Amino acid sequence: MKSVDAISSVVIVGAGLIGASIGLALGRRDVAVHVQDIDPAAVRLAAQVGAGNATPPSTEPDLVVVAVPPDHLGQAVVDALGRWPGAVVTDVGSVKRAPLQQATQRCSDLRRYVGSHPMAGSEHAGARAASAALFDARVWAVVPHEQSDPAAIATVERLVLTCGATALRMTPAEHDLAAARVSHLPYLLAVLAAARLVGGPDSHLALAGQGLRDVTRVAGSPPALWGQILSANAEPVAALLREVRDDIDGVLETLTTAGKHVQGDAKGPDAGPHALLDLLNRGLLGTKAVAASATGYPA
Amino acid sequence: MKSVDAISSVVIVGAGLIGASIGLALGRRDVAVHVQDIDPAAVRLAAQVGAGNATPPSTEPDLVVVAVPPDHLGQAVVDALGRWPGAVVTDVGSVKRAPLQQATQRCSDLRRYVGSHPMAGSEHAGARAASAALFDARVWAVVPHEQSDPAAIATVERLVLTCGATALRMTPAEHDLAAARVSHLPYLLAVLAAARLVGGPDSHLALAGQGLRDVTRVAGSPPALWGQILSANAEPVAALLREVRDDIDGVLETLTTAGKHVQGDAKGPDAGPHALLDLLNRGLLGTKAVAASATGYPA
Repeated sequence: MKSVDAISSVVIVGAGLIGASIGLALGRRDVAVHVQDIDPAAVRLAAQVGAGNATPPSTEPDLVVVAVPPDHLGQAVVDALGRWPGAVVTDVGSVKRAPLQQATQRCSDLRRYVGSHPMAGSEHAGARAASAALFDARVWAVVPHEQSDPAAIATVERLVLTCGATALRMTPAEHDLAAARVSHLPYLLAVLAAARLVGGPDSHLALAGQGLRDVTRVAGSPPALWGQILSANAEPVAALLREVRDDIDGVLETLTTAGKHVQGDAKGPDAGPHALLDLLNRGLLGTKAVAASATGYPA
Repeated sequence: MKSVDAISSVVIVGAGLIGASIGLALGRRDVAVHVQDIDPAAVRLAAQVGAGNATPPSTEPDLVVVAVPPDHLGQAVVDALGRWPGAVVTDVGSVKRAPLQQATQRCSDLRRYVGSHPMAGSEHAGARAASAALFDARVWAVVPHEQSDPAAIATVERLVLTCGATALRMTPAEHDLAAARVSHLPYLLAVLAAARLVGGPDSHLALAGQGLRDVTRVAGSPPALWGQILSANAEPVAALLREVRDDIDGVLETLTTAGKHVQGDAKGPDAGPHALLDLLNRGLLGTKAVAASATGYPA
């Protein structure tokens, strides 16, 4: 197989937020985009917003982009490889080992498949929320596996550039560990903060400020989709979550002491015991690490 | 004591972000503002940014605003009541029972004291980050205690309005429960997400996106200040943190099952067991509750 110098035709399987945004981004560069979805209404909506053509291509596309929910990625990748025997196939799921594993169980020749994952999204779902600029200046992980053909990798990297993003090559295992740390766990912690607001007195929400809105925003993302993502990346997420639980146990020990201190000591609490301050300082360092990693991102 | 129709003179004790922002906000309405701080450099900086006059007032002010770190609030309130025997005194600390308790232990007559708490801030510290618009359209809790004189309450509510905010009256206990839920716990969860970014491989941060930045932003706030806040509000925060730990235990159980499922079942994981989806749906409901509470806020 040979690599393509420019991508001229792409089939997108899955007309949700990411699929439609890829269609819009490619449309800016005059790529012919064909959109498919098991839901005809989703295809019509994607075509309406300009994300692509609702009719299948008459000739084989250069590339098929699979943008379906996590549980169906492996099967959809295998289907695409069978339907278009000369095309490169990528998926854009948030977890990379699970679909590869699923595809491997169903198909022995995966040379034309290269996983990928654009680090961009929205708490809103569907083509109506799609944006041609969603990937501009964002990182987009390109995740080959052992069988991946170098020409297929080059084609997927070309897709990333054509959509305005920066390609970052990693292995499936590296990707899933990193995604657990910078995306899946933060989402879960946002959910845990937001879940506390349900069932509490409504009057408490009157004090809600920008900090709460920022921390909880991603918890507004579709639960069904995220349930699949977390389950598909269960082990790395669980390992981090156990670290969080250990930290919480430390904080609870400190706060129990501090509570007694406030009640019993006329001098009031001191600056907070060492273990709590250690954790808060680690959090501050973490935000600095995020800021330092932001070079090249829009503010 | 009589209430004032308009505040004409205010002393601000503590020239940090909040103190200096109050000075700037009052300056827009031609209130004479005098700024004090144990750090002369902080006073000079506050005066330079236009937050107030560095010299003490020649006559008694209408109001003293105590904006010092949490551990020192109670003593500073008592000091202000003694220094200006006719002035109303408020503090703007993030916890309300602890300073009241501290002041009560030191002073028998607290009629001129009414606590308060503006629901606005920044992860940046100091007068250099101060803004005259910080409180515009924000809620500012006004928190009287049993001794508080109605005229003193009216004066503090006048302060809130003059700074551009909306006054919301609550008891100290109500305030501290609400603040634990909408501010102190979310801060801690942001810290727990950010702390995971320290010590992990740097390459993981290359995948950092806007979601991570939003979730972790408040963890960039000063740890020493937050250690005092959390310790001063230890019991309500610990109660919520125990709920979070229970939720985490439930998620870990689900993920352990899901991890085995991914490895052993060629059909791949399903949409995630019921308990996990329940939690994610509660998180979604929480974000909707926050959005519904936002009426009247800037977007």
